[in-house]
Amino acid sequence: MRTSIATVSLSGTLTEKLTAAARAGFDGVEIFENDLLAGPLAPDEIRARCADLGLTVDLYQPVRDVEAVPADEFARNLRRARHKFQLMERLGADTVLVCSSVSPLARDDDALAAAQLSELADLAQDFGIRVAYEALAWGRHVSTWDHAWRIVETAAHPALGTCLDSFHILSRSSGPKDLDAIEDIPGEKIFFLQLADAPLLGMDVLQWSRHHRCFPGQGGFDVAGLVARVLRAGYDGPLSLEVFNDVFRQAEAGPTAVDARRSLLLLQEELGVEVLPAPAPPSAVAFAELVTQDADPVAALLGGLGFTRTARHRGKPVDLWEQGEARILVNTGGAALARSRHRSRGKSPADGTAVAAIGLESADPAAAARRAEALLAPVLPRRRAEGDAPLDAVAAPDGTELFLCATRRPGLPDWRADFEDVPHAPAAADDVRIDHVALTQPWHRFDEAVLFHRGVLGLDAEESVDVADPYGLLRSRAVTDAGGGVRFPLTVAAAPGDDTAHARHIALGTGDVVAAARRLVEAGCRPLPIPVNYYDDLAARFEFADGELETYRDLGILYDRDAHGVFRHCYTRTVGRVFFELVQRDGGYRGYGAANAPVRLAAQHAVHRLTGG
Amino acid sequence: MRTSIATVSLSGTLTEKLTAAARAGFDGVEIFENDLLAGPLAPDEIRARCADLGLTVDLYQPVRDVEAVPADEFARNLRRARHKFQLMERLGADTVLVCSSVSPLARDDDALAAAQLSELADLAQDFGIRVAYEALAWGRHVSTWDHAWRIVETAAHPALGTCLDSFHILSRSSGPKDLDAIEDIPGEKIFFLQLADAPLLGMDVLQWSRHHRCFPGQGGFDVAGLVARVLRAGYDGPLSLEVFNDVFRQAEAGPTAVDARRSLLLLQEELGVEVLPAPAPPSAVAFAELVTQDADPVAALLGGLGFTRTARHRGKPVDLWEQGEARILVNTGGAALARSRHRSRGKSPADGTAVAAIGLESADPAAAARRAEALLAPVLPRRRAEGDAPLDAVAAPDGTELFLCATRRPGLPDWRADFEDVPHAPAAADDVRIDHVALTQPWHRFDEAVLFHRGVLGLDAEESVDVADPYGLLRSRAVTDAGGGVRFPLTVAAAPGDDTAHARHIALGTGDVVAAARRLVEAGCRPLPIPVNYYDDLAARFEFADGELETYRDLGILYDRDAHGVFRHCYTRTVGRVFFELVQRDGGYRGYGAANAPVRLAAQHAVHRLTGG
Repeated sequence: MRTSIATVSLSGTLTEKLTAAARAGFDGVEIFENDLLAGPLAPDEIRARCADLGLTVDLYQPVRDVEAVPADEFARNLRRARHKFQLMERLGADTVLVCSSVSPLARDDDALAAAQLSELADLAQDFGIRVAYEALAWGRHVSTWDHAWRIVETAAHPALGTCLDSFHILSRSSGPKDLDAIEDIPGEKIFFLQLADAPLLGMDVLQWSRHHRCFPGQGGFDVAGLVARVLRAGYDGPLSLEVFNDVFRQAEAGPTAVDARRSLLLLQEELGVEVLPAPAPPSAVAFAELVTQDADPVAALLGGLGFTRTARHRGKPVDLWEQGEARILVNTGGAALARSRHRSRGKSPADGTAVAAIGLESADPAAAARRAEALLAPVLPRRRAEGDAPLDAVAAPDGTELFLCATRRPGLPDWRADFEDVPHAPAAADDVRIDHVALTQPWHRFDEAVLFHRGVLGLDAEESVDVADPYGLLRSRAVTDAGGGVRFPLTVAAAPGDDTAHARHIALGTGDVVAAARRLVEAGCRPLPIPVNYYDDLAARFEFADGELETYRDLGILYDRDAHGVFRHCYTRTVGRVFFELVQRDGGYRGYGAANAPVRLAAQHAVHRLTGG
Repeated sequence: MRTSIATVSLSGTLTEKLTAAARAGFDGVEIFENDLLAGPLAPDEIRARCADLGLTVDLYQPVRDVEAVPADEFARNLRRARHKFQLMERLGADTVLVCSSVSPLARDDDALAAAQLSELADLAQDFGIRVAYEALAWGRHVSTWDHAWRIVETAAHPALGTCLDSFHILSRSSGPKDLDAIEDIPGEKIFFLQLADAPLLGMDVLQWSRHHRCFPGQGGFDVAGLVARVLRAGYDGPLSLEVFNDVFRQAEAGPTAVDARRSLLLLQEELGVEVLPAPAPPSAVAFAELVTQDADPVAALLGGLGFTRTARHRGKPVDLWEQGEARILVNTGGAALARSRHRSRGKSPADGTAVAAIGLESADPAAAARRAEALLAPVLPRRRAEGDAPLDAVAAPDGTELFLCATRRPGLPDWRADFEDVPHAPAAADDVRIDHVALTQPWHRFDEAVLFHRGVLGLDAEESVDVADPYGLLRSRAVTDAGGGVRFPLTVAAAPGDDTAHARHIALGTGDVVAAARRLVEAGCRPLPIPVNYYDDLAARFEFADGELETYRDLGILYDRDAHGVFRHCYTRTVGRVFFELVQRDGGYRGYGAANAPVRLAAQHAVHRLTGG
């Protein structure tokens, strides 16, 4: 199906918006009136620009407050409409959006509405234009899709049809039954279909609509269910996104357009009208890669955590550290650091050690890469030497490089084979794996990141939780595979500018966190100190065996429990922009110790202040 | 009355919060449990710190999910409570907040709730502690104040009372009648009163409560009406603020605490329990002061606008430019620039020309200053030479210096007398005045700024409007005096980081904007160019006399109309962080041309891009 996007969904000048939409692969655009009015390009120039970019102008929007008004007012409205139709002729747009009136002058008179819309359609027809009438959810007298459709049906004018908007429909729907009758609308009378999702905020619908719309799959609406009905009705126009969102308005248009188009690709896949390479969800984290200019502090920390340096890349300054199934690459190449800094848009400090890449263990890396590419994930250039294993990598929305790979699997290229073993002592334990990697996200890209990990990688998204940092609220939402082998809590600050949002961490799962923490201490790496008050509270909340709580207190181990099991965890100090967590999950505990996060964050701020780091 | 604030209302460490609360003049604090748990200070140390700061610990909060549960669960809850009561003993807190249960284990059984709360109160009494039971608006079975009170009444235990919270009560109230029965609660059984306001968002009450509370006077609740009832009931405890707000969490604790305490002072004034110096609202803008390192571009612009340089300060490098009743001071002193940069927290560019101060014409400047000081406005040191008129000045929340002054009024010190006339040509027009000064606000201080201008200066706040900038949504809310002599549209970006939010502008009212714009062009100052598309739209929307629209187009004049009259306005280019607007209000037009703001903002971005400024 053809896809389209309203210019109001993207930030910047009209030229920036059109360019971003075209680059992301949209077929057309809806031109939002203010984008035209506020820009220097004449309508003919916009038409030419769109043609150059391969975009059709699918809709001009909106004309407001036209119908069901006194005759003199309607005469003025027709005069205004004539101007707009002339403009649309120059613009090359053949469909105009007319929203149901919110004017205090409008009467509750469907016959009058139908008669005046019919007259408007007469005028439109002279210009070869179709009028798509849409019910705003807060329209004065017409606020539901079926009401708008009844008026269109009454008017029975060939140049008058209806525009369906998923936000206006689903924000007022009390269940899927409300929507069945959409299938009875003759398809050719559905002139346009606008799509938006939204989180289920239960707030005033106008504010909800103007500030909190998002792309399909990012909210709580069953957009696919609605579109399926519209398609069954026979609609064959474009799927067009119209999203008013405060965050997108402040984000760069290019990535937003890619996010937008990806959401439509996934929607079409769900509807069965688009076939994409099937998901090949990762089953484990093959490795996490740190970039650093100074490997010594990282090496000391990895040693303290029980890792041993097992191998070195044949052609690059990259060391492999291993412990059980946990593998950490330490890359001291300047190019990798520069890439990492570029991707995080300058947010990394010059001396920052950072999580730059993650290897995703896949049963079919090539298939996973094909899906990622089909879903517009930037495919990263292969910078491999002759003889290296072919390794597909894509960039996540936050810039993290995701390598789709296999580790010692028969018949698949093995990234591990690019490394040459070095003499090494055994690692401290063999039951260690990467439990999760917490990836802080740029403020503008959080919803995109969740959809990316779900849609592109085939992971599941858990509920969002709020976490109180002393200097601002954080929101965290984990994406995981079904088996729990891959877990990425994605975290974002409530507003841009909170520096704490930039540290990421790698959590190492172990069967004995107490032993692991003791090793860390013995290696001279002090764990993050946790206040005594925290342990007094633990004593109030839970009963412990003799000495158990004292052990936790001495080692800075935090404790949580859910309906399934117990979670014990502690943290290292932060190096650059990375720290490590040691975790022990028992009995099927599912979370990440969110209840303890405020304590951990406060402790990190305290250390930061003391060290002036 | 005593005032108190919950530590969760302020950002930072517990120490930072306590210090900020004490400096702002609060008498006590509620200690939020997580603030204690996450910090290094032991309860006794916190007690000592509070004592040093002159703060009482009025409440420890909260204990959750205690009541109406099976016996074994209640035994565990009592065990937990005992720990907390021991902690409170060390902390020196004698009242504990118990929120109505949200636990799935809780039963809908008021008798059980009363019996268990009574047992809890028995235990509390052993520690000299009172239990204040509060209905959470989303409590599982108890969610209203009267339900919670009935349970407390049934329990009839001397150590058990109720805690009233304005958010929980007003967010569920359908009108003031709901609240009358509050007056029937025996005052001594109201153990605590927590206050918060909130904007009327009509959203899910839990999310509303956790993210959008604000200080009294900053939202839409009738907090004063509620408190009046509680006082009539005989409550004599503190007025205590408990505000969960995403913005405050990211703002500095010091200014937030001042904002908080100011809101309580104003609330107490409204209630008649606190007498403050009466407001002496300003009647006009006496002057606007620009600071600059390079006076030439400013002088050229002022000349083009029709101003003439009439006088120079006797002791400082400050020129006075006048035209009619409009007066602009141009300050080239390095100290003023440094102050301005300091106040805006480094946001001004090094070469920035900026609006640093505003003179507010007052019938009683000394009274206005007394009120400002009583309401915690920072009083600025007088930096005047001998012989200068005494001039009171306070800092607004955004750092703008507000001079409370009189211009040539008999019996009052005249700031104008500090200036020595210089030879000058006449100004271009004599009907010019400062119509408004648009003051962009730091993201964290918008609500505070509105309350400051209302409460401290006695201005009225208009409705908030959204304005679409191409790179992000802006919110604008004007504060004005009753006569329209003082108008400050306060503007803020939807999120921090939008650079456009830092330019401010001075709008000059004139009786003939066309003539003024022509003069500007003739002086070689090109007005901000407005796209042709805008004028095509004007032609669609309005009918104009022959040639009228062409005149507007040639001069970049924008046009708006409301129910009262017509508004014509145009803009100069931006110098540093300042630009000027020429406006003509006819027939009582009340707004600021908000409908045209997206066009103006896009035009400013376009110029900025072209000039690389």
